[in-house]
Amino acid sequence: MFERIWTVRFSDTDPHGIAHYPRIVDALHETSDMFMQEIGFPFWELAQNRDFGFPLVEMDFEFDAPLHAGDEVRITLTPDPSTRAVRFEYEAYAGDTLAFSGYEQRVCARTGGGGAIEIPDGIREQFLDYAEE
Amino acid sequence: MFERIWTVRFSDTDPHGIAHYPRIVDALHETSDMFMQEIGFPFWELAQNRDFGFPLVEMDFEFDAPLHAGDEVRITLTPDPSTRAVRFEYEAYAGDTLAFSGYEQRVCARTGGGGAIEIPDGIREQFLDYAEE
Amino acid sequence: MFERIWTVRFSDTDPHGIAHYPRIVDALHETSDMFMQEIGFPFWELAQNRDFGFPLVEMDFEFDAPLHAGDEVRITLTPDPSTRAVRFEYEAYAGDTLAFSGYEQRVCARTGGGGAIEIPDGIREQFLDYAEE
Amino acid sequence: MFERIWTVRFSDTDPHGIAHYPRIVDALHETSDMFMQEIGFPFWELAQNRDFGFPLVEMDFEFDAPLHAGDEVRITLTPDPSTRAVRFEYEAYAGDTLAFSGYEQRVCARTGGGGAIEIPDGIREQFLDYAEE
Repeated sequence: MFERIWTVRFSDTDPHGIAHYPRIVDALHETSDMFMQEIGFPFWELAQNRDFGFPLVEMDFEFDAPLHAGDEVRITLTPDPSTRAVRFEYEAYAGDTLAFSGYEQRVCARTGGGGAIEIPDGIREQFLDYAEE
Repeated sequence: MFERIWTVRFSDTDPHGIAHYPRIVDALHETSDMFMQEIGFPFWELAQNRDFGFPLVEMDFEFDAPLHAGDEVRITLTPDPSTRAVRFEYEAYAGDTLAFSGYEQRVCARTGGGGAIEIPDGIREQFLDYAEE
Repeated sequence: MFERIWTVRFSDTDPHGIAHYPRIVDALHETSDMFMQEIGFPFWELAQNRDFGFPLVEMDFEFDAPLHAGDEVRITLTPDPSTRAVRFEYEAYAGDTLAFSGYEQRVCARTGGGGAIEIPDGIREQFLDYAEE
Repeated sequence: MFERIWTVRFSDTDPHGIAHYPRIVDALHETSDMFMQEIGFPFWELAQNRDFGFPLVEMDFEFDAPLHAGDEVRITLTPDPSTRAVRFEYEAYAGDTLAFSGYEQRVCARTGGGGAIEIPDGIREQFLDYAEE
Protein backbone atom coordinates (compact mmCIF):
# COMPACT_ATOMS: atom_id res chain seq x y z
CA MET A 1 0.00 0.00 0.00
CA PHE A 2 1.19 3.48 -0.86
CA GLU A 3 0.15 6.41 1.28
CA ARG A 4 0.39 10.17 1.12
CA ILE A 5 -1.14 13.13 2.92
CA TRP A 6 -3.10 15.65 0.89
CA THR A 7 -3.76 19.01 2.56
CA VAL A 8 -6.97 20.53 1.26
CA ARG A 9 -6.21 24.15 0.30
CA PHE A 10 -8.39 27.27 0.42
CA SER A 11 -8.27 27.37 -3.37
CA ASP A 12 -9.83 23.88 -3.46
CA THR A 13 -12.99 24.94 -1.62
CA ASP A 14 -16.46 26.08 -2.63
CA PRO A 15 -19.04 28.53 -1.24
CA HIS A 16 -20.01 25.94 1.41
CA GLY A 17 -16.36 25.71 2.46
CA ILE A 18 -15.95 22.16 1.16
CA ALA A 19 -13.67 20.80 -1.55
CA HIS A 20 -14.85 21.02 -5.16
CA TYR A 21 -15.01 17.55 -6.76
CA PRO A 22 -12.65 18.38 -9.63
CA ARG A 23 -10.03 19.37 -7.06
CA ILE A 24 -10.46 15.99 -5.32
CA VAL A 25 -9.88 14.31 -8.68
CA ASP A 26 -6.72 16.42 -9.11
CA ALA A 27 -5.51 15.02 -5.77
CA LEU A 28 -6.33 11.46 -6.82
CA HIS A 29 -4.37 11.74 -10.04
CA GLU A 30 -1.49 13.38 -8.22
CA THR A 31 -1.47 10.35 -5.93
CA SER A 32 -1.13 7.92 -8.85
CA ASP A 33 1.72 10.08 -10.17
CA MET A 34 3.46 10.03 -6.75
CA PHE A 35 3.06 6.27 -6.54
CA MET A 36 4.60 5.60 -9.95
CA GLN A 37 7.51 7.88 -8.98
CA GLU A 38 7.90 5.98 -5.70
CA ILE A 39 8.25 2.62 -7.46
CA GLY A 40 10.80 3.99 -9.93
CA PHE A 41 8.61 4.18 -13.04
CA PRO A 42 7.22 7.71 -13.08
CA PHE A 43 4.65 8.45 -15.77
CA TRP A 44 6.95 11.08 -17.27
CA GLU A 45 9.79 8.59 -17.63
CA LEU A 46 7.48 6.14 -19.43
CA ALA A 47 6.27 8.97 -21.70
CA GLN A 48 9.80 9.98 -22.63
CA ASN A 49 11.79 6.77 -22.73
CA ARG A 50 9.41 3.85 -23.17
CA ASP A 51 6.89 2.94 -25.84
CA PHE A 52 4.09 2.10 -23.44
CA GLY A 53 2.08 3.69 -20.65
CA PHE A 54 -0.89 3.10 -18.36
CA PRO A 55 -3.84 5.02 -19.81
CA LEU A 56 -6.95 5.24 -17.67
CA VAL A 57 -9.90 3.25 -18.99
CA GLU A 58 -12.30 3.52 -16.06
CA MET A 59 -12.74 5.46 -12.85
CA ASP A 60 -15.33 4.74 -10.18
CA PHE A 61 -15.47 6.70 -6.93
CA GLU A 62 -17.86 7.12 -4.03
CA PHE A 63 -17.86 10.27 -1.94
CA ASP A 64 -18.92 9.66 1.65
CA ALA A 65 -18.05 12.79 3.55
CA PRO A 66 -17.17 16.35 2.56
CA LEU A 67 -13.62 17.69 2.95
CA HIS A 68 -12.74 21.11 4.33
CA ALA A 69 -9.77 23.43 3.81
CA GLY A 70 -7.02 22.47 6.17
CA ASP A 71 -8.01 18.81 6.33
CA GLU A 72 -4.98 16.53 6.26
CA VAL A 73 -6.37 13.74 4.10
CA ARG A 74 -4.63 10.36 4.19
CA ILE A 75 -4.98 8.86 0.71
CA THR A 76 -3.96 5.24 0.26
CA LEU A 77 -3.35 3.54 -3.10
CA THR A 78 -3.25 -0.24 -3.40
CA PRO A 79 -2.37 -1.65 -6.82
CA ASP A 80 -4.15 -4.78 -8.01
CA PRO A 81 -2.41 -5.97 -11.19
CA SER A 82 -3.57 -8.53 -13.74
CA THR A 83 -1.54 -9.54 -16.80
CA ARG A 84 -2.22 -6.53 -18.99
CA ALA A 85 -3.94 -4.10 -16.65
CA VAL A 86 -3.78 -2.72 -13.13
CA ARG A 87 -6.42 -1.41 -10.79
CA PHE A 88 -5.38 1.36 -8.41
CA GLU A 89 -7.66 1.16 -5.38
CA TYR A 90 -8.00 4.30 -3.28
CA GLU A 91 -9.24 5.15 0.17
CA ALA A 92 -9.13 8.63 1.67
CA TYR A 93 -9.57 9.46 5.34
CA ALA A 94 -9.90 12.75 7.20
CA GLY A 95 -9.07 11.60 10.71
CA ASP A 96 -11.06 8.38 11.12
CA THR A 97 -13.76 9.38 8.66
CA LEU A 98 -13.78 7.78 5.22
CA ALA A 99 -14.13 10.72 2.83
CA PHE A 100 -14.04 8.87 -0.47
CA SER A 101 -12.99 5.55 -1.99
CA GLY A 102 -12.88 3.95 -5.40
CA TYR A 103 -10.57 2.85 -8.15
CA GLU A 104 -8.88 3.73 -11.39
CA GLN A 105 -8.57 0.94 -13.95
CA ARG A 106 -5.50 1.34 -16.15
CA VAL A 107 -4.29 -0.80 -19.01
CA CYS A 108 -0.72 -1.34 -20.04
CA ALA A 109 -0.74 -0.21 -23.68
CA ARG A 110 1.61 0.82 -26.46
CA THR A 111 1.87 4.56 -26.79
CA GLY A 112 0.02 5.98 -29.78
CA GLY A 113 -2.96 3.70 -29.77
CA GLY A 114 -1.64 0.14 -29.94
CA GLY A 115 -3.39 -2.63 -28.03
CA ALA A 116 -2.79 -3.83 -24.50
CA ILE A 117 0.52 -5.53 -23.71
CA GLU A 118 1.77 -7.50 -20.75
CA ILE A 119 2.97 -5.40 -17.86
CA PRO A 120 6.80 -5.63 -17.85
CA ASP A 121 8.09 -7.81 -15.02
CA GLY A 122 9.96 -5.06 -13.17
CA ILE A 123 6.85 -2.95 -12.86
CA ARG A 124 4.59 -5.90 -12.11
CA GLU A 125 6.85 -6.89 -9.20
CA GLN A 126 6.58 -3.42 -7.75
CA PHE A 127 2.79 -3.52 -8.05
CA LEU A 128 2.74 -6.88 -6.25
CA ASP A 129 5.03 -5.61 -3.49
CA TYR A 130 2.68 -2.72 -2.75
CA ALA A 131 -0.38 -4.95 -3.07
CA GLU A 132 0.82 -7.19 -0.27
CA GLU A 133 1.91 -4.62 2.26
CA MET B 1 -31.09 15.57 -23.16
CA PHE B 2 -28.78 18.51 -22.71
CA GLU B 3 -25.88 18.99 -25.07
CA ARG B 4 -22.84 21.22 -25.27
CA ILE B 5 -19.62 21.34 -27.27
CA TRP B 6 -16.33 21.24 -25.39
CA THR B 7 -13.26 22.31 -27.34
CA VAL B 8 -10.16 20.56 -26.02
CA ARG B 9 -7.50 23.22 -25.48
CA PHE B 10 -3.71 23.05 -25.78
CA SER B 11 -3.50 23.57 -22.02
CA ASP B 12 -5.57 20.39 -21.51
CA THR B 13 -3.06 18.15 -23.28
CA ASP B 14 -0.19 15.95 -22.21
CA PRO B 15 3.19 14.95 -23.69
CA HIS B 16 1.39 12.51 -26.02
CA GLY B 17 -0.83 15.34 -27.24
CA ILE B 18 -3.95 13.90 -25.61
CA ALA B 19 -6.18 15.35 -22.91
CA HIS B 20 -5.15 14.83 -19.28
CA TYR B 21 -7.86 12.98 -17.33
CA PRO B 22 -8.34 15.69 -14.69
CA ARG B 23 -9.04 18.17 -17.49
CA ILE B 24 -11.75 15.83 -18.86
CA VAL B 25 -13.30 15.76 -15.39
CA ASP B 26 -13.22 19.57 -15.35
CA ALA B 27 -15.21 19.52 -18.59
CA LEU B 28 -17.70 17.03 -17.14
CA HIS B 29 -18.36 19.13 -14.09
CA GLU B 30 -18.64 22.26 -16.22
CA THR B 31 -21.32 20.43 -18.20
CA SER B 32 -23.39 19.71 -15.08
CA ASP B 33 -23.06 23.39 -14.14
CA MET B 34 -24.22 24.49 -17.61
CA PHE B 35 -27.17 22.12 -17.44
CA MET B 36 -28.37 23.40 -14.06
CA GLN B 37 -28.08 26.95 -15.40
CA GLU B 38 -30.07 25.95 -18.51
CA ILE B 39 -32.98 24.64 -16.43
CA GLY B 40 -33.10 27.75 -14.26
CA PHE B 41 -31.58 26.29 -11.07
CA PRO B 42 -27.86 27.02 -11.31
CA PHE B 43 -25.70 25.53 -8.58
CA TRP B 44 -24.66 29.01 -7.45
CA GLU B 45 -28.28 30.10 -7.03
CA LEU B 46 -28.98 27.02 -4.86
CA ALA B 47 -25.83 27.75 -2.82
CA GLN B 48 -26.84 31.35 -2.18
CA ASN B 49 -30.61 31.29 -1.88
CA ARG B 50 -31.76 27.78 -1.02
CA ASP B 51 -31.04 25.44 1.85
CA PHE B 52 -30.34 22.40 -0.30
CA GLY B 53 -28.05 21.30 -3.10
CA PHE B 54 -27.07 18.26 -5.17
CA PRO B 55 -23.78 16.96 -3.76
CA LEU B 56 -22.01 14.25 -5.74
CA VAL B 57 -22.04 10.83 -4.06
CA GLU B 58 -20.66 8.68 -6.88
CA MET B 59 -18.96 9.03 -10.23
CA ASP B 60 -18.32 6.21 -12.68
CA PHE B 61 -16.76 6.83 -16.10
CA GLU B 62 -15.26 4.76 -18.89
CA PHE B 63 -12.72 6.24 -21.27
CA ASP B 64 -12.86 4.68 -24.72
CA ALA B 65 -10.80 6.91 -26.97
CA PRO B 66 -8.24 9.66 -26.38
CA LEU B 67 -9.06 13.30 -27.09
CA HIS B 68 -6.73 15.74 -28.82
CA ALA B 69 -6.36 19.52 -28.71
CA GLY B 70 -8.78 21.09 -31.12
CA ASP B 71 -11.32 18.27 -30.85
CA GLU B 72 -14.87 19.60 -30.72
CA VAL B 73 -16.35 17.16 -28.23
CA ARG B 74 -20.12 16.81 -28.09
CA ILE B 75 -21.02 16.06 -24.46
CA THR B 76 -24.59 15.02 -23.72
CA LEU B 77 -26.17 14.96 -20.26
CA THR B 78 -29.39 13.04 -19.60
CA PRO B 79 -30.86 13.37 -16.09
CA ASP B 80 -32.48 10.31 -14.52
CA PRO B 81 -34.24 11.45 -11.34
CA SER B 82 -35.61 9.35 -8.52
CA THR B 83 -37.41 10.81 -5.49
CA ARG B 84 -34.40 12.05 -3.55
CA ALA B 85 -31.54 11.70 -6.03
CA VAL B 86 -30.65 12.21 -9.65
CA ARG B 87 -28.26 10.46 -11.97
CA PHE B 88 -26.62 12.59 -14.66
CA GLU B 89 -25.71 10.27 -17.53
CA TYR B 90 -23.01 11.47 -19.89
CA GLU B 91 -21.79 10.54 -23.36
CA ALA B 92 -19.02 12.35 -25.17
CA TYR B 93 -18.27 12.07 -28.88
CA ALA B 94 -15.43 13.38 -31.02
CA GLY B 95 -17.04 13.12 -34.44
CA ASP B 96 -18.68 9.68 -34.44
CA THR B 97 -16.24 8.20 -31.93
CA LEU B 98 -17.41 7.66 -28.37
CA ALA B 99 -14.63 9.17 -26.26
CA PHE B 100 -16.06 8.56 -22.79
CA SER B 101 -19.32 7.82 -21.03
CA GLY B 102 -20.57 7.39 -17.50
CA TYR B 103 -22.58 9.01 -14.78
CA GLU B 104 -22.58 11.22 -11.73
CA GLN B 105 -24.96 10.23 -8.93
CA ARG B 106 -26.16 13.23 -6.95
CA VAL B 107 -28.48 13.39 -3.96
CA CYS B 108 -30.81 16.20 -3.07
CA ALA B 109 -29.65 17.14 0.42
CA ARG B 110 -29.93 19.92 2.95
CA THR B 111 -26.88 22.18 2.92
CA GLY B 112 -24.53 21.66 5.84
CA GLY B 113 -24.89 17.94 6.22
CA GLY B 114 -28.57 17.18 6.65
CA GLY B 115 -30.05 14.05 5.13
CA ALA B 116 -31.56 13.56 1.69
CA ILE B 117 -34.79 15.36 0.90
CA GLU B 118 -37.29 15.06 -1.92
CA ILE B 119 -36.32 16.93 -5.07
CA PRO B 120 -38.58 20.01 -5.27
CA ASP B 121 -41.27 19.64 -7.94
CA GLY B 122 -40.07 22.52 -10.12
CA ILE B 123 -36.62 20.99 -10.48
CA ARG B 124 -37.92 17.46 -10.84
CA GLU B 125 -40.12 18.53 -13.73
CA GLN B 126 -37.13 20.03 -15.50
CA PHE B 127 -35.15 16.82 -14.99
CA LEU B 128 -38.04 14.81 -16.44
CA ASP B 129 -38.36 17.14 -19.42
CA TYR B 130 -34.70 16.63 -20.32
CA ALA B 131 -34.92 12.90 -19.63
CA GLU B 132 -37.57 12.44 -22.27
CA GLU B 133 -36.14 14.49 -25.11
CA MET C 1 -9.50 42.98 -30.88
CA PHE C 2 -10.66 39.48 -30.04
CA GLU C 3 -13.51 38.98 -27.62
CA ARG C 4 -15.13 36.07 -25.84
CA ILE C 5 -17.57 35.58 -23.00
CA TRP C 6 -16.44 33.57 -19.98
CA THR C 7 -19.17 32.33 -17.66
CA VAL C 8 -17.87 31.99 -14.11
CA ARG C 9 -18.91 28.55 -12.86
CA PHE C 10 -19.81 27.35 -9.37
CA SER C 11 -16.66 25.21 -9.40
CA ASP C 12 -14.58 28.39 -9.90
CA THR C 13 -15.77 30.00 -6.67
CA ASP C 14 -14.47 30.21 -3.12
CA PRO C 15 -16.05 30.35 0.36
CA HIS C 16 -16.86 34.04 -0.20
CA GLY C 17 -18.66 33.13 -3.42
CA ILE C 18 -16.06 34.81 -5.63
CA ALA C 19 -13.78 33.33 -8.27
CA HIS C 20 -10.49 31.81 -7.13
CA TYR C 21 -7.51 33.54 -8.81
CA PRO C 22 -6.09 30.37 -10.39
CA ARG C 23 -9.45 29.83 -12.10
CA ILE C 24 -9.28 33.37 -13.53
CA VAL C 25 -5.84 32.54 -14.90
CA ASP C 26 -7.30 29.38 -16.47
CA ALA C 27 -9.85 31.60 -18.25
CA LEU C 28 -7.11 33.97 -19.42
CA HIS C 29 -5.05 31.19 -20.91
CA GLU C 30 -8.13 29.68 -22.52
CA THR C 31 -8.73 33.07 -24.15
CA SER C 32 -5.24 33.11 -25.71
CA ASP C 33 -5.90 29.59 -26.98
CA MET C 34 -9.23 30.64 -28.51
CA PHE C 35 -7.61 33.65 -30.16
CA MET C 36 -4.84 31.61 -31.79
CA GLN C 37 -7.50 29.20 -33.06
CA GLU C 38 -9.53 32.12 -34.42
CA ILE C 39 -6.62 33.43 -36.50
CA GLY C 40 -5.84 30.00 -37.93
CA PHE C 41 -2.68 29.22 -35.95
CA PRO C 42 -3.86 27.28 -32.90
CA PHE C 43 -1.20 26.48 -30.31
CA TRP C 44 -1.74 22.76 -30.87
CA GLU C 45 -1.11 23.09 -34.62
CA LEU C 46 2.16 24.93 -33.93
CA ALA C 47 3.15 22.25 -31.40
CA GLN C 48 2.50 19.42 -33.85
CA ASN C 49 3.49 20.80 -37.23
CA ARG C 50 5.84 23.73 -36.74
CA ASP C 51 9.22 24.11 -35.10
CA PHE C 52 8.33 27.24 -33.16
CA GLY C 53 5.80 28.47 -30.62
CA PHE C 54 4.95 31.45 -28.43
CA PRO C 55 6.12 30.63 -24.90
CA LEU C 56 5.07 32.99 -22.14
CA VAL C 57 7.91 35.08 -20.69
CA GLU C 58 5.95 37.49 -18.51
CA MET C 59 2.47 37.99 -17.13
CA ASP C 60 1.25 41.10 -15.32
CA PHE C 61 -2.36 41.46 -14.17
CA GLU C 62 -4.34 43.77 -11.92
CA PHE C 63 -7.54 42.61 -10.28
CA ASP C 64 -10.01 45.42 -9.70
CA ALA C 65 -13.30 43.75 -8.81
CA PRO C 66 -14.31 40.27 -7.67
CA LEU C 67 -16.21 37.93 -9.98
CA HIS C 68 -19.15 35.79 -8.94
CA ALA C 69 -20.59 32.51 -10.22
CA GLY C 70 -22.94 33.21 -13.09
CA ASP C 71 -21.12 36.38 -14.17
CA GLU C 72 -20.87 36.62 -17.95
CA VAL C 73 -17.40 38.12 -18.23
CA ARG C 74 -16.45 39.80 -21.50
CA ILE C 75 -12.71 39.21 -21.98
CA THR C 76 -10.97 41.13 -24.75
CA LEU C 77 -7.54 40.31 -26.16
CA THR C 78 -5.60 42.83 -28.25
CA PRO C 79 -2.30 41.62 -29.72
CA ASP C 80 0.61 44.07 -29.87
CA PRO C 81 3.35 42.44 -31.95
CA SER C 82 6.99 43.48 -32.30
CA THR C 83 9.47 41.68 -34.55
CA ARG C 84 10.18 38.65 -32.38
CA ALA C 85 7.56 38.90 -29.64
CA VAL C 86 3.94 39.70 -29.05
CA ARG C 87 2.08 41.19 -26.12
CA PHE C 88 -1.48 39.98 -25.56
CA GLU C 89 -3.33 42.76 -23.74
CA TYR C 90 -6.43 41.74 -21.81
CA GLU C 91 -9.41 43.54 -20.30
CA ALA C 92 -12.28 41.76 -18.58
CA TYR C 93 -15.64 43.29 -17.76
CA ALA C 94 -18.62 42.04 -15.77
CA GLY C 95 -21.31 44.37 -17.10
CA ASP C 96 -19.65 47.79 -17.11
CA THR C 97 -17.26 46.99 -14.27
CA LEU C 98 -13.62 46.34 -15.08
CA ALA C 99 -12.83 43.12 -13.24
CA PHE C 100 -9.21 42.68 -14.28
CA SER C 101 -6.72 43.79 -16.91
CA GLY C 102 -3.13 43.09 -17.85
CA TYR C 103 -0.94 41.38 -20.37
CA GLU C 104 0.94 38.27 -21.33
CA GLN C 105 4.29 38.80 -23.06
CA ARG C 106 5.14 35.96 -25.43
CA VAL C 107 8.20 35.45 -27.60
CA CYS C 108 8.32 33.67 -30.91
CA ALA C 109 10.90 30.96 -30.28
CA ARG C 110 12.15 27.72 -31.72
CA THR C 111 10.68 24.70 -29.96
CA GLY C 112 13.09 22.95 -27.62
CA GLY C 113 14.94 25.95 -26.34
CA GLY C 114 16.31 27.83 -29.33
CA GLY C 115 16.43 31.62 -29.29
CA ALA C 116 13.79 34.06 -30.46
CA ILE C 117 12.98 34.21 -34.16
CA GLU C 118 11.01 36.63 -36.28
CA ILE C 119 7.26 36.10 -36.21
CA PRO C 120 6.30 34.55 -39.58
CA ASP C 121 4.53 37.05 -41.85
CA GLY C 122 1.20 35.19 -41.98
CA ILE C 123 0.86 35.24 -38.20
CA ARG C 124 2.17 38.78 -37.87
CA GLU C 125 -0.47 40.01 -40.31
CA GLN C 126 -3.21 38.40 -38.26
CA PHE C 127 -1.85 40.01 -35.09
CA LEU C 128 -1.83 43.40 -36.82
CA ASP C 129 -5.39 42.92 -38.11
CA TYR C 130 -6.67 42.29 -34.59
CA ALA C 131 -4.54 45.11 -33.17
CA GLU C 132 -6.23 47.68 -35.38
CA GLU C 133 -9.86 46.70 -34.96
CA MET D 1 11.72 33.56 3.86
CA PHE D 2 9.39 30.62 3.44
CA GLU D 3 10.38 27.73 1.23
CA ARG D 4 8.72 24.64 -0.17
CA ILE D 5 9.47 22.05 -2.83
CA TRP D 6 7.01 21.63 -5.69
CA THR D 7 7.33 18.45 -7.73
CA VAL D 8 6.16 19.01 -11.28
CA ARG D 9 3.75 16.19 -12.16
CA PHE D 10 3.04 14.45 -15.46
CA SER D 11 -0.44 15.96 -15.37
CA ASP D 12 1.13 19.44 -15.31
CA THR D 13 2.95 19.01 -18.60
CA ASP D 14 2.24 19.87 -22.22
CA PRO D 15 3.00 18.27 -25.61
CA HIS D 16 6.58 19.62 -25.37
CA GLY D 17 6.96 17.93 -21.98
CA ILE D 18 7.08 21.22 -20.08
CA ALA D 19 4.76 22.62 -17.43
CA HIS D 20 1.64 24.44 -18.59
CA TYR D 21 1.58 28.02 -17.25
CA PRO D 22 -1.78 27.67 -15.46
CA ARG D 23 -0.32 24.75 -13.52
CA ILE D 24 2.65 26.90 -12.47
CA VAL D 25 0.17 29.49 -11.20
CA ASP D 26 -1.62 26.73 -9.26
CA ALA D 27 1.71 25.95 -7.58
CA LEU D 28 2.29 29.62 -6.78
CA HIS D 29 -1.08 30.02 -5.13
CA GLU D 30 -0.60 26.79 -3.23
CA THR D 31 2.65 28.25 -1.92
CA SER D 32 0.89 31.35 -0.55
CA ASP D 33 -1.66 29.05 1.09
CA MET D 34 1.10 26.95 2.68
CA PHE D 35 2.86 30.07 3.95
CA MET D 36 -0.26 31.48 5.63
CA GLN D 37 -0.80 28.08 7.27
CA GLU D 38 2.84 28.07 8.43
CA ILE D 39 2.48 31.41 10.21
CA GLY D 40 -0.75 30.37 11.93
CA PHE D 41 -3.22 32.42 9.88
CA PRO D 42 -4.38 30.09 7.10
CA PHE D 43 -6.63 31.65 4.47
CA TRP D 44 -9.44 29.27 5.42
CA GLU D 45 -9.30 30.33 9.06
CA LEU D 46 -9.54 34.01 8.03
CA ALA D 47 -12.48 33.16 5.73
CA GLN D 48 -14.36 31.34 8.48
CA ASN D 49 -13.55 33.24 11.65
CA ARG D 50 -12.39 36.72 10.77
CA ASP D 51 -13.98 39.60 8.89
CA PHE D 52 -10.98 40.35 6.72
CA GLY D 53 -8.72 38.64 4.20
CA PHE D 54 -5.87 39.29 1.77
CA PRO D 55 -7.39 39.49 -1.72
CA LEU D 56 -4.98 39.60 -4.63
CA VAL D 57 -4.84 42.95 -6.42
CA GLU D 58 -1.86 42.40 -8.73
CA MET D 59 0.36 39.61 -9.97
CA ASP D 60 3.53 40.06 -11.99
CA PHE D 61 5.73 37.11 -12.98
CA GLU D 62 8.61 36.46 -15.33
CA PHE D 63 9.28 33.00 -16.69
CA ASP D 64 12.94 32.35 -17.39
CA ALA D 65 13.29 28.64 -17.95
CA PRO D 66 10.85 25.82 -18.69
CA LEU D 67 10.02 23.19 -16.07
CA HIS D 68 9.77 19.47 -16.75
CA ALA D 69 7.85 16.64 -15.07
CA GLY D 70 9.86 15.33 -12.16
CA ASP D 71 11.60 18.64 -11.49
CA GLU D 72 11.87 19.35 -7.78
CA VAL D 73 11.26 23.08 -7.83
CA ARG D 74 12.35 25.12 -4.79
CA ILE D 75 9.85 27.98 -4.46
CA THR D 76 10.66 30.73 -1.97
CA LEU D 77 8.19 33.31 -0.68
CA THR D 78 9.37 36.48 1.05
CA PRO D 79 6.66 38.76 2.45
CA ASP D 80 7.15 42.53 2.21
CA PRO D 81 4.41 44.17 4.29
CA SER D 82 3.32 47.81 4.34
CA THR D 83 0.60 49.16 6.63
CA ARG D 84 -2.44 47.92 4.72
CA ALA D 85 -0.95 45.59 2.12
CA VAL D 86 1.64 42.90 1.65
CA ARG D 87 3.72 41.85 -1.31
CA PHE D 88 4.61 38.15 -1.57
CA GLU D 89 7.85 37.91 -3.55
CA TYR D 90 8.58 34.57 -5.20
CA GLU D 91 11.60 32.89 -6.70
CA ALA D 92 11.58 29.37 -8.11
CA TYR D 93 14.64 27.28 -8.88
CA ALA D 94 15.09 23.92 -10.59
CA GLY D 95 18.55 23.02 -9.34
CA ASP D 96 20.54 26.25 -9.77
CA THR D 97 18.42 27.54 -12.62
CA LEU D 98 15.95 30.34 -11.95
CA ALA D 99 12.73 29.10 -13.52
CA PHE D 100 10.46 32.01 -12.63
CA SER D 101 10.19 34.95 -10.25
CA GLY D 102 7.71 37.68 -9.45
CA TYR D 103 5.22 38.86 -6.88
CA GLU D 104 1.65 38.87 -5.73
CA GLN D 105 0.37 42.13 -4.24
CA ARG D 106 -2.35 41.57 -1.64
CA VAL D 107 -4.32 44.08 0.39
CA CYS D 108 -5.69 43.56 3.85
CA ALA D 109 -9.41 44.21 3.34
CA ARG D 110 -12.73 43.67 5.05
CA THR D 111 -14.55 40.66 3.66
CA GLY D 112 -17.45 41.51 1.38
CA GLY D 113 -16.01 44.54 -0.30
CA GLY D 114 -15.03 46.99 2.42
CA GLY D 115 -11.91 49.11 2.04
CA ALA D 116 -8.36 48.31 3.07
CA ILE D 117 -7.59 48.06 6.77
CA GLU D 118 -4.38 47.90 8.75
CA ILE D 119 -2.80 44.48 8.93
CA PRO D 120 -3.41 43.17 12.48
CA ASP D 121 -0.23 43.23 14.57
CA GLY D 122 0.00 39.46 15.06
CA ILE D 123 0.04 38.83 11.34
CA ARG D 124 2.29 41.79 10.59
CA GLU D 125 4.87 40.47 13.04
CA GLN D 126 4.89 37.11 11.30
CA PHE D 127 5.34 38.80 7.92
CA LEU D 128 8.28 40.78 9.32
CA ASP D 129 9.86 37.66 10.84
CA TYR D 130 9.83 35.92 7.47
CA ALA D 131 10.98 39.07 5.67
CA GLU D 132 14.16 39.24 7.74
CA GLU D 133 15.25 35.63 7.62
